[in-house]
Amino acid sequence: MLDFVFHNPVRIYFGKGQMTKITDEIENGKNILITYGKGSIKQNGVYEELMSVLLDKAKSLGKKYSIFEFSGIEANPTYETLMGALEIIHSKRIDYLLAVGGGSVIDGTKFLAAAAKYDKGDPWNILLKRGRGIEDALPMGTVLTMPATGSEMNGNSVISRKSTKEKFAFFSPHVFPKFSILDPTTTFSLPEKQIANGIVDAFVHVMEQYLTYPVNSPIQDRMAEGILLTLIEEGSKIFANRGRDKDRNRDRDRDKDNKQTYLKDYNVRANIMWAATMALNNLIGVGVPQDWSTHMIGHELTAEYGLAHAETLAIILPSLMHAMREGKSEKLIQYAKRVWKVEKIVETDKDKNKEDKIIDFAIGKTREFFEMMGVKTNLIDYKINEEAVNIIIGRLEKHDMTKMGEKGDITLEKCREILKNSL
Amino acid sequence: MLDFVFHNPVRIYFGKGQMTKITDEIENGKNILITYGKGSIKQNGVYEELMSVLLDKAKSLGKKYSIFEFSGIEANPTYETLMGALEIIHSKRIDYLLAVGGGSVIDGTKFLAAAAKYDKGDPWNILLKRGRGIEDALPMGTVLTMPATGSEMNGNSVISRKSTKEKFAFFSPHVFPKFSILDPTTTFSLPEKQIANGIVDAFVHVMEQYLTYPVNSPIQDRMAEGILLTLIEEGSKIFANRGRDKDRNRDRDRDKDNKQTYLKDYNVRANIMWAATMALNNLIGVGVPQDWSTHMIGHELTAEYGLAHAETLAIILPSLMHAMREGKSEKLIQYAKRVWKVEKIVETDKDKNKEDKIIDFAIGKTREFFEMMGVKTNLIDYKINEEAVNIIIGRLEKHDMTKMGEKGDITLEKCREILKNSL
Repeated sequence: MLDFVFHNPVRIYFGKGQMTKITDEIENGKNILITYGKGSIKQNGVYEELMSVLLDKAKSLGKKYSIFEFSGIEANPTYETLMGALEIIHSKRIDYLLAVGGGSVIDGTKFLAAAAKYDKGDPWNILLKRGRGIEDALPMGTVLTMPATGSEMNGNSVISRKSTKEKFAFFSPHVFPKFSILDPTTTFSLPEKQIANGIVDAFVHVMEQYLTYPVNSPIQDRMAEGILLTLIEEGSKIFANRGRDKDRNRDRDRDKDNKQTYLKDYNVRANIMWAATMALNNLIGVGVPQDWSTHMIGHELTAEYGLAHAETLAIILPSLMHAMREGKSEKLIQYAKRVWKVEKIVETDKDKNKEDKIIDFAIGKTREFFEMMGVKTNLIDYKINEEAVNIIIGRLEKHDMTKMGEKGDITLEKCREILKNSL
Repeated sequence: MLDFVFHNPVRIYFGKGQMTKITDEIENGKNILITYGKGSIKQNGVYEELMSVLLDKAKSLGKKYSIFEFSGIEANPTYETLMGALEIIHSKRIDYLLAVGGGSVIDGTKFLAAAAKYDKGDPWNILLKRGRGIEDALPMGTVLTMPATGSEMNGNSVISRKSTKEKFAFFSPHVFPKFSILDPTTTFSLPEKQIANGIVDAFVHVMEQYLTYPVNSPIQDRMAEGILLTLIEEGSKIFANRGRDKDRNRDRDRDKDNKQTYLKDYNVRANIMWAATMALNNLIGVGVPQDWSTHMIGHELTAEYGLAHAETLAIILPSLMHAMREGKSEKLIQYAKRVWKVEKIVETDKDKNKEDKIIDFAIGKTREFFEMMGVKTNLIDYKINEEAVNIIIGRLEKHDMTKMGEKGDITLEKCREILKNSL
């Protein structure tokens, strides 16, 4: 096991109705800025429930908050949008931020928390310096309504800049949320596409911390595998087309019923939500090598073509597994055996390249899983063609992403191979 | 999954030489009380390394601490001993506690941290009220030298009182350590007996949070199983008598060599250490029912007969699994399949009581594992005979432990059955 430091002070309130705990967390008299996205929280009851806590419940406790709102934080939140919120923070003397939404709203709010106290010039420097230099931040809490990024329980944030088509990540211990409310029932109104994207995102977060080389870290490995297995199980409950399963001989109507049942299942939602949080609260990443190159290449695809984050990951990961199979072989085989239970199938096979077959099987299963959930795994599915290869390579080069991966061996040449395989 | 709140703000520094981080954690000018046990830290180099950090490294950073010591905290730390330390805390105006040792030293120091700020009469009330009423505590850090209790990453403490032969636990969020140093190399000098006891203790911590009834919590289950598997693997590396394994046909000398190799293996020590911490930092216990009755019965055995904590757990757990097999059957079978890989063995068996056989197998394996490490699993092994049954039942009754377990169905009658089975 490698040496590590672990610290995660976020307080998690998990379960139905946990939003009422917000009044325990935020002191009387605070000027709260509620940040959210395009307004779905006003349709699904989350906004109403929140207001009832911040106004009525607070009042019953003798507390009074001044409440301001900033809406319109987009998927892949932009510097341009967020600078509008920063003006409100300064003019209204905001001293608590409450992010209500998914990873984009939370990431954007982390940027605001840091930017509000930043005195080293243009807040974009926060991104350029990847968070170094942040010395203070506004306190913030979150109400998570879309499980995916894990942002509710870490100090990470990813921000895009429209004008320059850039997308960068930063980390600071100052932007850990003080608390996060995880109420699985708030996710019932999510479109299926967003459930699927969230599962892919969490899945790839685990893979970036798991699929490197072994360092004798069985606790972290088994936790990672446990999260992967859970995402596969719960994702399959909702999305599996059981009609194709000959053994079960179920028809399409039965499938639809199944899907509707699982879409309304509290435990399915709860397990997906907790899996996504555990995927990126740093527990599975301590003491092990990490490889965030699927994300790095993916960020460039989003910045250039506007693809959803999860779509870029679903495109890149299988090709990257293929291209980097030599350096990652031991973990690929462990993944095949423990997550996809390949052992029995292959041990009857006397072929020489047994290991390669196991790895192919694991890559195939990974791709199948993403596709089953409706997240396509080739660039061409998104109408992106071969031109993209040079464009993305150029962007990676410009951003100094020339030696990625746990061994620094994901060079631009390797990236070219990965992108070509992704067509 | 059940609703939950999770919050664990302890900062972990894991790895060789991490003790140097203490100067980052403790502010200049603090009056530090170092608490430790019987003095093994003066033989194994830990004390020397610590002093070099607190004096020399601090000086090089322009920091100066006033350092005081309190030694002699015993296994199953007592109120009587600790009250001596409390006098020093008051007379020397101690404002930081640094526990250096295993769970007993850390638990004792948590009691001191709370007692130093306790203004509600005799500090024993902290135990009688199980930690309720603690409003403040001295800040504390830990240097863990014996993996077992998980105390380094939680707010729990267990304290005994010699005069009344009582042993109680308390919890308070105020006594979370600010930081804990986990350097696996500090455990190289541990006697084998203590390694074995530590593994049993951690193993049973997991079982108390896992072996209840299913609530659809796959993440927690798989994390728990991952910790159990790791403890079994690493414990077996050190303690397995491979000479008995006919297939391998190894002789005793080979076994001794093996043991010596694994006793010196950094990763074995590191994995045991991290497993024990993860076993009781509350992550595997969120959102699931828990059953701490093995501990409760065990505490009475320690209080009455002075058995080591782990010994009492090794005695009680197998009998409790047997006695409570009906209510715990689903989890027992899951445990048998996932941890002890029973499936193949039993599926060839056409017997009617297949489930009972699976459960018997799991209980047998658990007992074998403890015995293999030299931790005996029957009262008679400790020269305790049938008289103990009434004595312990009397103690449990006196302490209101009459409806234990996740379903409140571990009555005194059931305890009697468990104790009789343990003879």
